[in-house]
Amino acid sequence: MSVTAPLGFRAAGIAAGIKSGDARDLALVVNDGPSRAAAGVFTANRVKAAPVLWSQQVLAGGRVRAVVLNSGGANACTGPLGFQDTHATAEKAAAALDDSAGEIAVCSTGLIGERLPIDALLAGVDVATAQLSRDGGLAAADAIRTTDTVSKISFKRGEGGYMVGGMAKGAGMLAPALATMLCVITTDADVTAEQLDAVLRRATRVTFDRLDSDGCMSTNDTVLLLASGASGVVPDLAEFEKKITEVCADLARQLLVDAEGATKAIAVEVVGAASEEDAVTVGRTVSRSNLLKCAIHGEDPNWGRVLSAVGTTDAVFEPDRLNVAINGVWICRGGAAGDDRSKVDLRPRNVTITVDLSAGPHSATVHTTDLTAAYVHENSAYSS
Amino acid sequence: MSVTAPLGFRAAGIAAGIKSGDARDLALVVNDGPSRAAAGVFTANRVKAAPVLWSQQVLAGGRVRAVVLNSGGANACTGPLGFQDTHATAEKAAAALDDSAGEIAVCSTGLIGERLPIDALLAGVDVATAQLSRDGGLAAADAIRTTDTVSKISFKRGEGGYMVGGMAKGAGMLAPALATMLCVITTDADVTAEQLDAVLRRATRVTFDRLDSDGCMSTNDTVLLLASGASGVVPDLAEFEKKITEVCADLARQLLVDAEGATKAIAVEVVGAASEEDAVTVGRTVSRSNLLKCAIHGEDPNWGRVLSAVGTTDAVFEPDRLNVAINGVWICRGGAAGDDRSKVDLRPRNVTITVDLSAGPHSATVHTTDLTAAYVHENSAYSS
Repeated sequence: MSVTAPLGFRAAGIAAGIKSGDARDLALVVNDGPSRAAAGVFTANRVKAAPVLWSQQVLAGGRVRAVVLNSGGANACTGPLGFQDTHATAEKAAAALDDSAGEIAVCSTGLIGERLPIDALLAGVDVATAQLSRDGGLAAADAIRTTDTVSKISFKRGEGGYMVGGMAKGAGMLAPALATMLCVITTDADVTAEQLDAVLRRATRVTFDRLDSDGCMSTNDTVLLLASGASGVVPDLAEFEKKITEVCADLARQLLVDAEGATKAIAVEVVGAASEEDAVTVGRTVSRSNLLKCAIHGEDPNWGRVLSAVGTTDAVFEPDRLNVAINGVWICRGGAAGDDRSKVDLRPRNVTITVDLSAGPHSATVHTTDLTAAYVHENSAYSS
Repeated sequence: MSVTAPLGFRAAGIAAGIKSGDARDLALVVNDGPSRAAAGVFTANRVKAAPVLWSQQVLAGGRVRAVVLNSGGANACTGPLGFQDTHATAEKAAAALDDSAGEIAVCSTGLIGERLPIDALLAGVDVATAQLSRDGGLAAADAIRTTDTVSKISFKRGEGGYMVGGMAKGAGMLAPALATMLCVITTDADVTAEQLDAVLRRATRVTFDRLDSDGCMSTNDTVLLLASGASGVVPDLAEFEKKITEVCADLARQLLVDAEGATKAIAVEVVGAASEEDAVTVGRTVSRSNLLKCAIHGEDPNWGRVLSAVGTTDAVFEPDRLNVAINGVWICRGGAAGDDRSKVDLRPRNVTITVDLSAGPHSATVHTTDLTAAYVHENSAYSS
């Protein structure tokens, strides 16, 4: 299923020899139309990888015929030669598909600062083109994995029978805006590029943008949304946005669960905020407290570390009106100790930290993970 | 030596029973004059502990007779009753010294969110008062330790023969502005409160404020500067500021070396910045990258993680003009791979990461540590 669940899409995932060993490392997703409407959102990092710079230009046209994705190398911080490699990749796919390079998006993930083995990659594009099929979605999702322990896929059926499918990769650096992640979402609904753009921005803002596993932001993050129109269904836009948001939320949840070295999935739910922006700011700040993330790892309901983090923000609140619950137990009330902390059960993998700012009606939830020795080990040993 | 190196100061450090066991946990520092001029800088966290709220009021008057400091409890997030405990502590010390509570500063450090064992603390104030002596500085420095493995003290002689002495505690949450730290600096120079205030703000801005071990900011951070005038020396103010800055820098270095679980002391030196503010912003952002801190722990010269961090700031720079050196080897030039990364020797404890923004003449250095499994273990197991 994955990106080939909707009509009009073919995909492939192959081992091109970009990674050492024989793991899959190259994916190709092709939109056979009739429409090629597309939208994308990209990392906010000012240091952008070559494929991001390229694909931003492609998406500016609102049309995408195909996406070439590789793991095994990010092609970031590689200078003008790195950009030429991305350009050559798009030209190669265009030639293989007898199409225009200006409608070929490129995504890369892996180690920063090293050139890609471009000969292997270009040869791989031909192999992948030859293997394109209507059931290639799973192989494509597999080919984009780096430290991901599992492939991430999702699909939903919309009203009137159109389909939405998606694949993603990412297992660390899940930070705003967007994780170290690549994500391709496809649909056979008939939707214009402008509509896709508006829907995708709103959907990512409340899903991928609210993941924050370690506060780090990648040079390569990309989310693409491609529409073939092959179902012939013109969806109700509100219903379509809901479906796209559901697929994004499902993929985001899978990314979080697979975050490097994590043993807890923590939802930081901020309520009583004066604005949604305040709620997101507080949620993000609490999510980034290494001390708190260690405490949750140790199953210690250390609400003092929550308040310490909240206090560093410029959100509207009074310190003596802050309330904090962990897994439903209000252990901090009015900025001081509340209910008995021994009532908090932190053994389950899912942890909810609720912060009540007592300052208004707005709320938001940011998702993070605990900080573990395994995270340190993985990120000390793996040059990524 | 420590805070009793200058003339006019007595100190004591005793075990009052605030901590479990028989470790010292209460310190008293008394200024016998003739001057009582004093200045303080406090945490920027909006969630401030009761002793911070109290001492800010005391310091607003520019005069301090004595400082009571306790470990074993932060008296933060303890509500009105916690503030009453701090008030009672100041009143107790005032009575013991036959002085005014309005000139007694109070500092606390330890677990957030729990009331102090106030009866033990108040009894301890009497014991400490009875033990005050001209050589009590070391015992006082010992009494304020929490997870610190060693006491932190410093002293310098100024021109004309005046002395500066200091003690500090802090071993984690070293973040702006100020670490989870308490610091008392004393001098027998004859300086006004206004002069002390200006000097202390400038000195802490370039020392304690540029430590960032884990990005977390405490509710209790306090740096106090007390002048007895007992040497009779009226110092040159520029020379005096230099001495105070040296003592702050020395104590800051000791805090960093003792940071929880660290195996590397990392100096992030930002040069070529368009402004000092840009340099500090970039230094702080690089210092907070968990991914980079893990890489340095693993002795991996991962300059891509440096660029990823730089790219998240709003500092003035062009991605293709960034240069990065690690321990003197320019492994990134012009935003891409530079000299051979195998030439970087990351075995020494001290690591220097130099980021050249190629955007101007300004520079700043921020100090941090690596992220280790030991950090995770210490902060998972210790409710602090």
